[in-house]
Amino acid sequence: MMNDGMRNAGKGTPGLLRIGALEAGGTKMVCAVGNENGELEKRAEFPTETPERTLPRLIDFFRYEGLDALGVGCFGPVDLNRNSQTYGYITNTPKPAWVNCDFAGSLRNALGVPVGFDTDVNGAVLGEVCFGAARGCESAVYITVGTGIGVGIYVNGGLLHGLMHPEAGHMFVARLPEDRYPGRCPYHKSCLEGLASGPAITERFGRPAAELAGRNEVWELESGYIAQAVANLILTLSPQKVILGGGVMHQKQLFPLVRKKTAGLLNGYLSCSAVDKNMDEYIVPPALGDDAGIRGALMLGKAELEHSHGHKAKALEEASEHFAQSLRNYDGDPRKARDTKKTSW
Amino acid sequence: MMNDGMRNAGKGTPGLLRIGALEAGGTKMVCAVGNENGELEKRAEFPTETPERTLPRLIDFFRYEGLDALGVGCFGPVDLNRNSQTYGYITNTPKPAWVNCDFAGSLRNALGVPVGFDTDVNGAVLGEVCFGAARGCESAVYITVGTGIGVGIYVNGGLLHGLMHPEAGHMFVARLPEDRYPGRCPYHKSCLEGLASGPAITERFGRPAAELAGRNEVWELESGYIAQAVANLILTLSPQKVILGGGVMHQKQLFPLVRKKTAGLLNGYLSCSAVDKNMDEYIVPPALGDDAGIRGALMLGKAELEHSHGHKAKALEEASEHFAQSLRNYDGDPRKARDTKKTSW
Repeated sequence: MMNDGMRNAGKGTPGLLRIGALEAGGTKMVCAVGNENGELEKRAEFPTETPERTLPRLIDFFRYEGLDALGVGCFGPVDLNRNSQTYGYITNTPKPAWVNCDFAGSLRNALGVPVGFDTDVNGAVLGEVCFGAARGCESAVYITVGTGIGVGIYVNGGLLHGLMHPEAGHMFVARLPEDRYPGRCPYHKSCLEGLASGPAITERFGRPAAELAGRNEVWELESGYIAQAVANLILTLSPQKVILGGGVMHQKQLFPLVRKKTAGLLNGYLSCSAVDKNMDEYIVPPALGDDAGIRGALMLGKAELEHSHGHKAKALEEASEHFAQSLRNYDGDPRKARDTKKTSW
Repeated sequence: MMNDGMRNAGKGTPGLLRIGALEAGGTKMVCAVGNENGELEKRAEFPTETPERTLPRLIDFFRYEGLDALGVGCFGPVDLNRNSQTYGYITNTPKPAWVNCDFAGSLRNALGVPVGFDTDVNGAVLGEVCFGAARGCESAVYITVGTGIGVGIYVNGGLLHGLMHPEAGHMFVARLPEDRYPGRCPYHKSCLEGLASGPAITERFGRPAAELAGRNEVWELESGYIAQAVANLILTLSPQKVILGGGVMHQKQLFPLVRKKTAGLLNGYLSCSAVDKNMDEYIVPPALGDDAGIRGALMLGKAELEHSHGHKAKALEEASEHFAQSLRNYDGDPRKARDTKKTSW
């Protein structure tokens, strides 16, 4: 356990919730405890091995923290449909040990608290909306360009789900004329992730992105693909902020290139000063750096607690209404007064 | 006035709202009166000329209908930001007479009822969600392929706005290798609209779509572009239903081609049975045919009425609280009891 706790676990801050946060990645699990102001006070990382080895370590980390709720931003694909039998599961991930793992359910059962569950990138965009570069926005997009490419989407004041969840890292882009690299996505070969992920850069140019900083042609090409994706996301979602994070975006020279090429593609069509005149403030790095996901996870936990309170309040109201009805119907025969309707929450 | 009213305007149906609906297109204005069940009882069309000529005819149509509200689905771009000075305006449209026209405001001032205002395609998707092919869906996409290409988006149970509104008809797609046509979008040349709108078909093949029904190569190409757009919208928005409407989609042979090519592009990546196994029910024509927009406009009117009631109730509550406070503070000096705070709604 790589615990770098800033202080001993205590009872948290009076008047604030005590929320567990888990950013579940394909390589490592980042755990933290914090509050709804986005403050983190205890933190640890564990390698992502198998559910049998990893889940107990996560549970041990959170078990005695006196949590009110836990929020989880998870690598995917995941099932986010609350009406589904497999809600809270990791589904058909390329990591075989985790296929059909009831991740949220295992944590909820072990910890006995509400568990908010979403994709890692939805967690990250939520973090930036609550505490970072998209603070106060009603809509924002977070694109992470790293080992894979993922897109978290916040619209109309909520995280975008739908049939499952966005997988816009796999959107189709036009191959740039100078690019002969075939792409490496096992499903789509030359989708955005196939052409522009970190491993695609490494395979195309023979070295990882971090060792190619001075090679202009690398970033001309990479920014050309990212700009197509950003332009399409702007045209589709009309976000108030576009945030580009992930390992590849540590190459800061990408930002001016992506801004310029996105503007070139849109070509003034939107007539929107936020896009046309303030690109430097419109397409930005995450203000929370690598903490966007873990701080977003705090808010996933908070939202689930509120959801669960709403659910409990509704059930309580129904139960009390039912009880009142039973009383009104009561004619002195105790068998009729017995309430056979069960209320569970 | 091309009035084809089904019966004389009366007082509407007891117990139901009386809602005006306006589908404002670049060529014609479709007006109707109906109710929140989507029933239409009076209808007319007027050509779209200039605001000076056309607005009075619209106002005359609705003026004596005893409306509770009006809903407008409008050609764009439009300003949908309620906090903006130009909320309800048509903004930088290519139709010069309508640039910066305060369309919703003019109708609201003349008719004295709440006016719901959104894009034509958002109106159409709302119609299909409330009464048509996407009934009961929490998320759906409506793509109209005609003179232009427009996309209406309903997600998380609401119409998508954002910084402005979706303009996904202009998304960038990969040129198909067999296509030498340069594209005709004045902003982007070869974006989706530039390559796949009705006029692009006409210009490329020398005849309008309706006269090319038997030419397989036309529909192979057209479906190839539409499928890229549909795949990208699925990957980005994860809709529960994709509806393809507009004049070009009257060529029904496009549907099986678009379904097959979309499935081919996604290549099983989403592992989602709705997409992988039920394409025939996933990518569909509008169930309301050409009435999606006008019936959606009814619901825009209803939503605005609810919004306005919420606003009035809140103002009333504040006024009454303020009045109660004044009473509590009243010490017998009538000058102090005079309430100088104004409440307006």
